Amino acid sequence: MRKKLLFFLFALNISAQAQVSDSAMIAKLYREVLLNGTCYNELHDLCKNIGHRVAGSAAADKAILWGKERLNAMGADTTYLMPVSVPKWSRGKSEKGVVIINKKKTTIPIAALGGSVAGDITAQVIMVKSVQELEQMDPKKVKGKIVFINKPLDAALINTGAAYGGGGEMRWRGPKLAAEKGAVGCLTRSLTLADDQFPHTGAMDATTIPAAALSAYHSKWLGDLLQENDDVTFHLDLKCTNGGRVTQYNVIGELRGAEFPEEIITIGGHLDSWDIGEGAHDDGTGCVQSMEVLRTLKAIGYQPKRTIRVVLFINEEFGNDGGLTYAKVTKEAGDEHLAAIESDGGGFTPRGFSTQSPDDRYNQWMTWTSLWEPYQLHSFKRGWSGVDIAPLKDDRVALFALNVDNQRYFDYHHTKNDVFENVNKRELQLGAASMASLVYMIDQHFSPIP
Amino acid sequence: MRKKLLFFLFALNISAQAQVSDSAMIAKLYREVLLNGTCYNELHDLCKNIGHRVAGSAAADKAILWGKERLNAMGADTTYLMPVSVPKWSRGKSEKGVVIINKKKTTIPIAALGGSVAGDITAQVIMVKSVQELEQMDPKKVKGKIVFINKPLDAALINTGAAYGGGGEMRWRGPKLAAEKGAVGCLTRSLTLADDQFPHTGAMDATTIPAAALSAYHSKWLGDLLQENDDVTFHLDLKCTNGGRVTQYNVIGELRGAEFPEEIITIGGHLDSWDIGEGAHDDGTGCVQSMEVLRTLKAIGYQPKRTIRVVLFINEEFGNDGGLTYAKVTKEAGDEHLAAIESDGGGFTPRGFSTQSPDDRYNQWMTWTSLWEPYQLHSFKRGWSGVDIAPLKDDRVALFALNVDNQRYFDYHHTKNDVFENVNKRELQLGAASMASLVYMIDQHFSPIP
Repeated sequence: MRKKLLFFLFALNISAQAQVSDSAMIAKLYREVLLNGTCYNELHDLCKNIGHRVAGSAAADKAILWGKERLNAMGADTTYLMPVSVPKWSRGKSEKGVVIINKKKTTIPIAALGGSVAGDITAQVIMVKSVQELEQMDPKKVKGKIVFINKPLDAALINTGAAYGGGGEMRWRGPKLAAEKGAVGCLTRSLTLADDQFPHTGAMDATTIPAAALSAYHSKWLGDLLQENDDVTFHLDLKCTNGGRVTQYNVIGELRGAEFPEEIITIGGHLDSWDIGEGAHDDGTGCVQSMEVLRTLKAIGYQPKRTIRVVLFINEEFGNDGGLTYAKVTKEAGDEHLAAIESDGGGFTPRGFSTQSPDDRYNQWMTWTSLWEPYQLHSFKRGWSGVDIAPLKDDRVALFALNVDNQRYFDYHHTKNDVFENVNKRELQLGAASMASLVYMIDQHFSPIP
Repeated sequence: MRKKLLFFLFALNISAQAQVSDSAMIAKLYREVLLNGTCYNELHDLCKNIGHRVAGSAAADKAILWGKERLNAMGADTTYLMPVSVPKWSRGKSEKGVVIINKKKTTIPIAALGGSVAGDITAQVIMVKSVQELEQMDPKKVKGKIVFINKPLDAALINTGAAYGGGGEMRWRGPKLAAEKGAVGCLTRSLTLADDQFPHTGAMDATTIPAAALSAYHSKWLGDLLQENDDVTFHLDLKCTNGGRVTQYNVIGELRGAEFPEEIITIGGHLDSWDIGEGAHDDGTGCVQSMEVLRTLKAIGYQPKRTIRVVLFINEEFGNDGGLTYAKVTKEAGDEHLAAIESDGGGFTPRGFSTQSPDDRYNQWMTWTSLWEPYQLHSFKRGWSGVDIAPLKDDRVALFALNVDNQRYFDYHHTKNDVFENVNKRELQLGAASMASLVYMIDQHFSPIP
């Protein structure tokens, strides 16, 4: 009995020591990022010297080379490119939206939805308040018209991601449904809670009619006009082109594990963006934060036990080719993925992590949460991980999303306002440090599920 | 035994019902603010039509009338003005700072510190890295010089308020100490973690020499110059005037309690700002959030049991006259203050509350915290309440500060960059809703400590 007790006390002591040493190491990681972090400068470089970088574009090619070069410069043991087939869609050099009432023309800002076909049409506008209303509508009423789907997001939801999700089908399903009903074009209200004049683009189900987003401000304005006027026509002129598929690359940089190099911890964001703005919050921040994790581990002289792999995924926005390819290639290669962490919610103050994990992993992780109390992370829960890493899901891997304060995210998301100036240095750094500390904990304490 | 059990189950049921009804009411409050809140528009009005409003100024007079008018319009049962004696200091129409090395002159932005005397001086600059270094310094070295105190804030601290506090004596004590050592002027590094070109003003101990802040960027630049050059002079030209004291007013609006009108719950922010920028985050946001609480309670038809009193304090920045006067006047009148809540940390996403409270109050409050989990408030702790309400402290009143995500606060604080455009509508609204829900809980569940 005494022996058992002694062993128990010994084990308890080891565990307490481990927590102390973990908390000291986490403090070191936060300190390094906050005092010497380079992610804010890297983001400036990406946003200002490359700018937006939609999949398939020359700018995306440039960003891929940039990412590999930067990971090398930060001291990755190895960097390489993983080929990914991506679509090559272009907005074209101009796009135009004009509201016409009694011959009075008012040009308003629009943004073609991703994958839209070109078109130069003028037709009467018919407004619906939801996709469901459109579904119920007699095709005769829709035929030859431009359908305008005008559903504001639900501002009463605290989580803006839930509000976005709730409105999403307007953009994802709306245009295709409108085409099936005989419409000649489709306009959708931007998926934002801000009352601003930026149209927000984004992916939709492919369809045969031109489709574009209106800003929240102009959606409300046009909605009011349609209440008062029976005959409102719209001139929609899009010059989009679909250029088939091309090969681009996931960019990968690794710190090789000293003890279990075959065990992989992936961290990443997506390198592609939409083709307006600078893709700062979506998802330049996730890329530079992931790179910062590697830089930081090197800077403090930490030798990982497992292999830390930074992945800058290509084409999250337009079919998730990078994420799907990465999961396929690594599974075929038999990579032993312990965990993957994604940052794709913007470079805002971190609030915690959500996870898609097997129960044992989840339970182990939950014993760590108090370590992040000093860093004001309070939210640790089951939930979505990330578009790029979700295809890795199986019954062994732990997938994590960095969760951030998302009140401002959909002000910028997929607009020309998603620029470097709207990213705060410390908020960005705190996210990177939070990711680095989770990587450290996983590296120390996870081992493969048998 | 059976009777006891039944009673216990009955009591448990009542308590569970109370929690359900509280959570339903809190949901209603958040919903009203997020869907129909006017605080963002009120802030726009205050910032754009009045602008900055330093105590003693004509703009502050205008803001006082504005506050009273708006509280009336929102349906306060009564509004009134409480006279407060405040200082009348003016920056003057121009201020100038010029660095001179080998006759080469470089003009850099400066901001006179609050209360500075005028002066037009040119003298050699001597740099110290801290107030402590200045304390140790031989007065002979200081005599006739301009002292430049150049201590960066500690970026490794997660709480930017702690970083601000740690650097604060540079501004508060530095100029007076420099004068005592024989300096003819004083320059202090701005109290910010941002690497920008905005000088941050703020209060200091009154002294006889002119004193001004340099931006963080120019402090670093001047510091580097001083490492390389033995003889750097500075031309400091301030036109400040001190105009004695004048009477202005705390603005007060009340919803009268139906059951216990003599029991008071105060909510407030401070109406004065510094005399640059628009006083948006400091503290226009706290004012419009407090007003929003009143509007929201009216809008949902809630009849408070106790008296809800909105106070827009005058002159927090420059001696806390509004807060000191309010505490004095209400104590003399025998007001039964149950609680006071202040918002003066900027209009950012709320994270929770901190409190200065007697133990019983604190313990009661701690049983409520799970009610705010759906609204992502996680931080409930003992700590500072607020400059304006702290003078109310005694052994019976509960004082609360709305705690917000403060990573961006000191980017704007006391600068010309503290403008409406840097406030996010939803972040502002969530703070107001959080305050409204705490007011509701106090109104329902606190009663005077015997």
